[in-house]
Amino acid sequence: MIIAMKSDATEEQINDACESVRHLGYTPHLIRGEERVVIGAVGSGEKEEHLQALRCVPGVADVLRILQPYKLVSRELKPQKTIVRVGDLEIGGNEFIVMAGPCSVETREQLLETAVAVKEAGAQILRGGAYKPRTSPYDFQGLEEEGLKLLAEAREHTGLKIVTEVVTSDDAEVVAEYADILQVGARNMQNFALLKRLGRAGKPVLLKRGMSSTIKELLLSAEYIASHGNDQVILCERGIRTFETATRNTLDLAAVPVLNELSHLPVVVDPSHGTGKRSLIRPLSKAVIAIGADGLIIEVHPRPQEAWSDGPQSLTLPDFAELMVEIRRCVGNESRHIN
Amino acid sequence: MIIAMKSDATEEQINDACESVRHLGYTPHLIRGEERVVIGAVGSGEKEEHLQALRCVPGVADVLRILQPYKLVSRELKPQKTIVRVGDLEIGGNEFIVMAGPCSVETREQLLETAVAVKEAGAQILRGGAYKPRTSPYDFQGLEEEGLKLLAEAREHTGLKIVTEVVTSDDAEVVAEYADILQVGARNMQNFALLKRLGRAGKPVLLKRGMSSTIKELLLSAEYIASHGNDQVILCERGIRTFETATRNTLDLAAVPVLNELSHLPVVVDPSHGTGKRSLIRPLSKAVIAIGADGLIIEVHPRPQEAWSDGPQSLTLPDFAELMVEIRRCVGNESRHIN
Amino acid sequence: MIIAMKSDATEEQINDACESVRHLGYTPHLIRGEERVVIGAVGSGEKEEHLQALRCVPGVADVLRILQPYKLVSRELKPQKTIVRVGDLEIGGNEFIVMAGPCSVETREQLLETAVAVKEAGAQILRGGAYKPRTSPYDFQGLEEEGLKLLAEAREHTGLKIVTEVVTSDDAEVVAEYADILQVGARNMQNFALLKRLGRAGKPVLLKRGMSSTIKELLLSAEYIASHGNDQVILCERGIRTFETATRNTLDLAAVPVLNELSHLPVVVDPSHGTGKRSLIRPLSKAVIAIGADGLIIEVHPRPQEAWSDGPQSLTLPDFAELMVEIRRCVGNESRHIN
Amino acid sequence: MIIAMKSDATEEQINDACESVRHLGYTPHLIRGEERVVIGAVGSGEKEEHLQALRCVPGVADVLRILQPYKLVSRELKPQKTIVRVGDLEIGGNEFIVMAGPCSVETREQLLETAVAVKEAGAQILRGGAYKPRTSPYDFQGLEEEGLKLLAEAREHTGLKIVTEVVTSDDAEVVAEYADILQVGARNMQNFALLKRLGRAGKPVLLKRGMSSTIKELLLSAEYIASHGNDQVILCERGIRTFETATRNTLDLAAVPVLNELSHLPVVVDPSHGTGKRSLIRPLSKAVIAIGADGLIIEVHPRPQEAWSDGPQSLTLPDFAELMVEIRRCVGNESRHIN
Repeated sequence: MIIAMKSDATEEQINDACESVRHLGYTPHLIRGEERVVIGAVGSGEKEEHLQALRCVPGVADVLRILQPYKLVSRELKPQKTIVRVGDLEIGGNEFIVMAGPCSVETREQLLETAVAVKEAGAQILRGGAYKPRTSPYDFQGLEEEGLKLLAEAREHTGLKIVTEVVTSDDAEVVAEYADILQVGARNMQNFALLKRLGRAGKPVLLKRGMSSTIKELLLSAEYIASHGNDQVILCERGIRTFETATRNTLDLAAVPVLNELSHLPVVVDPSHGTGKRSLIRPLSKAVIAIGADGLIIEVHPRPQEAWSDGPQSLTLPDFAELMVEIRRCVGNESRHIN
Repeated sequence: MIIAMKSDATEEQINDACESVRHLGYTPHLIRGEERVVIGAVGSGEKEEHLQALRCVPGVADVLRILQPYKLVSRELKPQKTIVRVGDLEIGGNEFIVMAGPCSVETREQLLETAVAVKEAGAQILRGGAYKPRTSPYDFQGLEEEGLKLLAEAREHTGLKIVTEVVTSDDAEVVAEYADILQVGARNMQNFALLKRLGRAGKPVLLKRGMSSTIKELLLSAEYIASHGNDQVILCERGIRTFETATRNTLDLAAVPVLNELSHLPVVVDPSHGTGKRSLIRPLSKAVIAIGADGLIIEVHPRPQEAWSDGPQSLTLPDFAELMVEIRRCVGNESRHIN
Repeated sequence: MIIAMKSDATEEQINDACESVRHLGYTPHLIRGEERVVIGAVGSGEKEEHLQALRCVPGVADVLRILQPYKLVSRELKPQKTIVRVGDLEIGGNEFIVMAGPCSVETREQLLETAVAVKEAGAQILRGGAYKPRTSPYDFQGLEEEGLKLLAEAREHTGLKIVTEVVTSDDAEVVAEYADILQVGARNMQNFALLKRLGRAGKPVLLKRGMSSTIKELLLSAEYIASHGNDQVILCERGIRTFETATRNTLDLAAVPVLNELSHLPVVVDPSHGTGKRSLIRPLSKAVIAIGADGLIIEVHPRPQEAWSDGPQSLTLPDFAELMVEIRRCVGNESRHIN
Repeated sequence: MIIAMKSDATEEQINDACESVRHLGYTPHLIRGEERVVIGAVGSGEKEEHLQALRCVPGVADVLRILQPYKLVSRELKPQKTIVRVGDLEIGGNEFIVMAGPCSVETREQLLETAVAVKEAGAQILRGGAYKPRTSPYDFQGLEEEGLKLLAEAREHTGLKIVTEVVTSDDAEVVAEYADILQVGARNMQNFALLKRLGRAGKPVLLKRGMSSTIKELLLSAEYIASHGNDQVILCERGIRTFETATRNTLDLAAVPVLNELSHLPVVVDPSHGTGKRSLIRPLSKAVIAIGADGLIIEVHPRPQEAWSDGPQSLTLPDFAELMVEIRRCVGNESRHIN
C-alpha cells in the first residue's frame, strides 16, 4: 500500500498517518520527495477497508493499492491453466468448445430440433434458458423446471452437455440436478448470495461478465465461487455497456488475453449478446478463435423471427451449420481441434 | 411500433413484413416514402419480443418502439405523486426526508452513538447495512441478523425509522421483520427474483439505480415490484459508472426531474456513493434539494478513519450536524419543511 | 513516482529498474514488502513520458503517478480564486453570471429580439454561434463573420457582453476582434493548436469540457492556454457522454466542487447541452446555483420550433424571463447577487 | 421521419404537428394507434434540424429518424468496396496492409533504424508522428517539419510509404508535401475545419475514430472529407473510452464488420492505442485479421523503454519481426496476401 501525503501536510499529520499505518498492522516506510512525502506500508493481506480508511486521515492526498485483491483465481498463485472437466469434455485445454442453442427453451419441438441440429454441426454443449432474467416483468420469464426437463431430454437424445442459467440461489439445487454447467448471467455477476451458493454446487460454473463490470470485478466474483469451495469456473466475456448504439453491447475482445494473463481460468466469448446482430456473429466468432479464447457460446433458433427472446441475434440452423465449417477451419489453423 | 424497411426491400418482403405484423396481432399501415417504406403497427400491448422478432424479417432495417414498456409506475397512468407512508412519515410529500447512518452496522456502540447523533441533528430515518454486498469475498460481509437487532434497538432508543438492505430473496422475510423500509442495492437492481419477492413484502422498498442502468431500466425494475403487489417504492439515484475517475461514480442529478416527469414515485438521492468523497457531500446535498428530490441518504460514522467500509465518503457526527443546519435552510428556501 | 515490481521480479531486474530511475534523473528508494518490492522515485518535474517509459522495464508491474501534471491552473499553486474580468463584469467573484442566447446566430431579427429580451430579463452576456461545429456536413454551418457583426450590433444595442465560439485557430483573430469571450467547444477541447493560439488571444476564454474528457484532461487543456500566456480561462461543464439515453448528455454536477478543489479558475455550467431538453433547464439551473458554480450558460430562442439548431433544448423568451426570476431568488438565498 | 404524439395530445395539437411537417416540405401520413397517434413524414433530405425542430411542437412525444444522415460514404449508395491507391499499393483490396513505426519521430537514427527493420519484416507503410497532439503542454510536442524531412528520407531509403498526422488545418499543406497518407488523430475526428481542408488535400486520409465517437459520427466525419472533394478515406478503429481500466482503451472490433456493412471505405485497426499494452498486440492483431479488416497500424520502437511517448505499447524491432511471421501466416489462412 502506498499513501501519498498532500504537499502541504504537516509533520504532525505525517506522523499521524504513519501511526495509522502501524495501527492497521503494517510497517510504514517514509520517502521524502521534493514536493511531497509518500509512505509505503509493508505487510500482508492488503484489504479494501484499509485502503479506504486511510483516505480519511488528515493530510492524506491519495492511497494506492499495489497488490491484486484476488488470490485463488490468479496466475501469480497458479501459473498453469485450469481445465474444467464436464464428463469427458475438457474446457481450457487444446479442444475448442462450442456451446449453442436457443436463448430460451420454448417448446419440446423447438429444443429438440435445435439440439439435433447443433450436435450434428459439431457443437459439444447445448445452451438454453429455463429461468429467464428479463428487464420487463411483462416479458416471457421462462418455462422453469419444465424447461430443465426438456434440456435433460435433449441431452439424453443427443449426448450434448447442458449449460443453463440459475437466476437465484433458491433455484441452484434444482438447476444443478439437471444441468452439467450452471450459468451466472451478466445481471447476477455481483449477486453474491448466488455466487456463494454456487461455491457449494459441485458443478462447473459459467460466469458471465456484468455489462458494466471491470475485469478485476469479474475475477473477484470468480474468487467468491472459488473461495466458497468451487474452482471449476469458466469466465465469459459477453460485451460491456458503452455509449455506442450500433451494437447491443461492445464486445471487449482484449479482455480475453488480459484474463489469460491475470488468471488461470478458461475463457469463452458470447458474440450473440455481445453484438445483438446475426450478421456480426461470423466475423466475431473468427476473431474469438484467433485471439485465443477457449470457446464460443452462440444463440441458435430454428425460426428466429418467431423466437420468444433474442430473435435478431439468433442464427438459423443452416446458418449455424455453415458457421461451424468455418469455425472448424479457423480452429485448425490455430493448431487446436474441435471434437 | 414502427417498422422501417430497407431502401432495397422488395414488394414481396414488404408484404411479408405486413403479414408478420398481422401475425403478432397488430394492424399494419403502410407509408411509402421517397427512399423507403415504413410500416406502422397499430394495436396494444407492445412487447419487447415483438420488437425483436420483427428485426429478423427479411428486408426490415429497423424496428422502433413508440410506447413506454412500464405502466403501473408511469405518470401517464397515474398523474398524482405517490406518497410512501412509513408510520407517521410521508415520503414524496412536502416534507424533505433525510436518511443517515453508517455504511455497515459494526458494533452496538458505533450504531447507537450514530443513531442518537443523527436523530438530534434532525434525520428521520436511520440507514445501516446488516447484509453487505461486497466486491471482494475477503471484505467484511455484515453482522447479518445480529445487525438487524442492533438497528431495531436503535429505533427503540431514538424513534428513528430503519432502512436496511436485503441482498437475496432468502433474507427478505427476516429483514422485513426488523426494518421499516427494505433497500435494494445497486448491484441487485436487476435481481428479478428479489424484486418479485419484495412485491409481496408488505413494506416500502427503496430501489437503488444500478450503476450502469438506464432510467428506463430503473422504472422497469420498479414495475416488477409494483406488478407483484407492492406500489410503495422509493426510487434512488446513487451515481452511474462512467470513464471519469475523479469521483467514485457520476451522480446523474438530471435523473431526478426526468423520473419526476416519467413516474409518480418519490425520488431520493445518495451523494455518498454518488461521489465517494466526504468534501463533496455538502455541495451535492444542496443541489439535490434545489433540483426537487424528496430526500437524501447520507453515510455518517463516528470515526470514519476506522470504518469497516466506505470511510472516505462518510461524514463525522459534527460534520453531519453542521450539514443538517444547511439542509434545513435550503429546504426552507424551497418552501418545504423537515420535521 | 512509484514503481511496483512484479512479485517474481529478480534482484537483477530490481537493480535495473533502480538504474532506469536514476537514468531519468530521480533518486530511487527501495521498499521491500512481504510480497513484492516497490521503488519510490524522488525528484521533480514528473513527466508522462517517464511514467510510460518505466512500464517497459522488465519486472515492472505498474507505475503510479503521485503529482498532478497541471501546475498554473492548480489550487496548490494559487489558493485564491481567479476573477476573470470582462469590462466591468467579474466572473468568479460574488456576482452570479448568466450567459444566454440562441445556439446559432440565424438572422438579425432573431438575434436582436433575443438580445433585448435576455438583457431585460437580467442576463449579463449574450451567447450565439457564428461558426458552428456540426456533426453532419449537410447541417447549417453558421453565418461566420456576418454572424459576428450581428453579435457586435446586439452588444451595441443592449450593452451585453458577447461570448461566441472559435472553431479553428485560423478564425481566432477575426473572432477576437468582435467577441468579449472566446468559446472553445466540447469537440475542440483537445484541439491543441487552437488552445495554443488562444494563449495569445488577449481575451478571456470559455473552455468547454469535452464530451468524454476527464476533469484532469479539462485542467490540462486549461493549462495549455495558461502556459501559452493567457490565464483568463473560465471552465464549463456541459455534460459527458454515457450509456444513458434519456438525456442528450449526463451533466456531471459533481465536477463543479471537484474543479473548485483542484483549480482556482471560475466554473460555469451549460444545462442546455447537458440535458438537451427544455423542461429540465429550470431544475438543473437551480442545482447549478446551489452547488456553487459561478454562472450558467443557457440557450434561448424566440421560436424554438423554427430554430436551425438545438430547438428542443432552447427556452422561449417568456420561459427565460420566468426562469430568471427563480434564478435571482436562488442566487439571493446563497448570499450572492446578480446585476 | 416519424413523429410520435403524446397519448394526451389534442386534435388541435395533432393538426398543428401535421402543419409543421408540411411547413418543412414533407407530406404527413397519420396513423391512429390504440394509445396514441403517430405521424409519418414523407419526403427527401431528412435533416437533423428538422428532427430537432419538431420535438418543440406541443403534443409531440418523440421524433425518430428513418434515414441515415450520411450519403457518399454509404454502401447503400455505392455497394462495391473502395480501393484507396497509394502509389502501387492498394488499400481495401485483397492485400493486407501493415503500417508500422514509432509513435513520434525522435531522431534520424531512431527513425531510420526502425524504417529499415519494419521494411525488412514486411510492412508496407511507415508511421511516425512529427506533429504530436499531447494531453499535457509539458510533454514532447513533436519535431514538426524537421520530423517530416526525416520521414521523407526514410521513404527514400526504404521505399516504404509514409503516413503521418496533421493536427491543424494550418499544417495540412506542409504535411501533404511530404506524406503519402494524411492521418487525422482521434482527438481531431470532429475538428471540422481540418476535415474540410483535407477534402481538398489531394492525398488519401487515414481517419481515426474519436475515443468517444459513435460509428455513425465516424462516418459523418468521413462524409465531411468526401463531400469536400476527397473520397480516398481509410477508416481506423483505435479503441473507445469506457469504464474499464485494465486496457488504455476498449478496442471495438465489432466496429469492423459494422463499418463494412454500412460503408464502402477500407477499415484498418490500431491495436497499440487500442490496448496500450505490448503483450496484447499479438492476440489482437490476429483477431483483426480474422475479423476482416484491411490492415493494421502498429507502434514499433528500437528501444521502447527510452521512447519519448507510448513506450509501453511499442513493440521492439525483433518482436515486430516475429509478429509479422504470424501475421503473414494468418493473412494466408484468410486467402489474402501481404506483399
